Amino acid sequence: MELNIIKVGGNIIDDESKLHEFLKAFTATEGYKILVHGGGKVASEIGLKLNIEPNYINGRRITDKPTLDLVTMVYGGLINKNIVAALQALGCNAIGLTGADGSVLPASKRPVKDIDYGFAGDVRSNKVNTSLIKLLLYNGLIPVFAPLTHDGNGNMLNTNADTIAQEIAKAMATIMPVQLIYCFEKRGVLINAADDSSVINQITAQDFSELKEKEIITGGMIPKLENAFGAIESGVNKVIIGHADELSALVAGNAGTWIV
Amino acid sequence: MELNIIKVGGNIIDDESKLHEFLKAFTATEGYKILVHGGGKVASEIGLKLNIEPNYINGRRITDKPTLDLVTMVYGGLINKNIVAALQALGCNAIGLTGADGSVLPASKRPVKDIDYGFAGDVRSNKVNTSLIKLLLYNGLIPVFAPLTHDGNGNMLNTNADTIAQEIAKAMATIMPVQLIYCFEKRGVLINAADDSSVINQITAQDFSELKEKEIITGGMIPKLENAFGAIESGVNKVIIGHADELSALVAGNAGTWIV
Repeated sequence: MELNIIKVGGNIIDDESKLHEFLKAFTATEGYKILVHGGGKVASEIGLKLNIEPNYINGRRITDKPTLDLVTMVYGGLINKNIVAALQALGCNAIGLTGADGSVLPASKRPVKDIDYGFAGDVRSNKVNTSLIKLLLYNGLIPVFAPLTHDGNGNMLNTNADTIAQEIAKAMATIMPVQLIYCFEKRGVLINAADDSSVINQITAQDFSELKEKEIITGGMIPKLENAFGAIESGVNKVIIGHADELSALVAGNAGTWIV
Repeated sequence: MELNIIKVGGNIIDDESKLHEFLKAFTATEGYKILVHGGGKVASEIGLKLNIEPNYINGRRITDKPTLDLVTMVYGGLINKNIVAALQALGCNAIGLTGADGSVLPASKRPVKDIDYGFAGDVRSNKVNTSLIKLLLYNGLIPVFAPLTHDGNGNMLNTNADTIAQEIAKAMATIMPVQLIYCFEKRGVLINAADDSSVINQITAQDFSELKEKEIITGGMIPKLENAFGAIESGVNKVIIGHADELSALVAGNAGTWIV
């Protein structure tokens, strides 16, 4: 049976009614499935009240100790547990996880080169605990991952949700066929960023490098696609990028952009 | 094999070095084991910064919606995940859970009689998901419970950690022999509250009602002992109350107060 690994980002999480619709579509998805969720604005909002100023370099949040505590509680507690409770109410037997739980995603604190990212974790790809994921899936449980890992020395680490989805997909692809779906607020990769109907249906690595050069693909879409191509190169069957409100069409392969 | 269910309270959680010693002793405990942790002052401290005033009636926190979000993130995220990461570093294969995860502890919002406790959950004793707990234990995982449940309608609920420990103990006692250990900041039930050496080694239900009448047992110890006797009446083999820094002696039956 195919495993759908579905990543949903902050924009959906911040909107209660959109999130509910998304979780209904997720619940309706057949077969093995895993949800990976991002952060959302709520962490920054709570952080501001706690006098923790968000600090970004190249689109990545710098995780000092107060920020680590903030994301551990907001991502691992508030967001993760409310999603799990909502899925349970829909009849989806969700179980919330961070990378520390069952050491499912061991990571290394990112080495300091030009930038010190603080408590940011790079997943140790060959250490992903696929046995635990398999155990849960085979017993009817639906893992819901918060974007957090741990270093094995007692520290939680902050890890990008796209990366977590990619790492789980790569690891699980050694066991079963995997389809990886990135849901965000666009219909897919667009030829014209202002035109939501200009979705590119399929994109190859060569297309990607051409579109990057022409500056048609820019900003946050670049690391998202790099993650996607990384997954394909590592044995993931299909990667699809599209809008969170079309989840069932994305799962069926009838919407979004296919990475091939 | 016997299952030790060990509850540790806020006083230990608030003290990093005491918590570390406790987690070392927990890791060294042989056989099946489960940890249930309480809240600690950190929730109130973060709540104050977020302008959420703690509000207690009869020693129980009133859980309005902002307080529910606060405890969901602090208990379910910050405290639970840091304990799990610390246990993993010690070689204990911990997995953090709230009652929503795998619907392991379904609960009902406490009915309003004289007091509206808000989002406070009473565990539905006959619905505890012992299959999930068994699955995890039999596969070498060590469940670590935050004091949170859910109502099955999408809401998290705040539930006293002593009660959670008791409910899990009662449910698991139908499957395997269970020893329930309440760790707190006293050596056990004391004849003289000021004298830490005046531990009562064994206490029966009759002793308890006499000591309550004489006002030797008062305050927060009363619900703790009521929980303990409730567990014994429901088939739990042994309940022991004692100091968190004596965990291995408590497990071995060489310290604290036995409830018989």
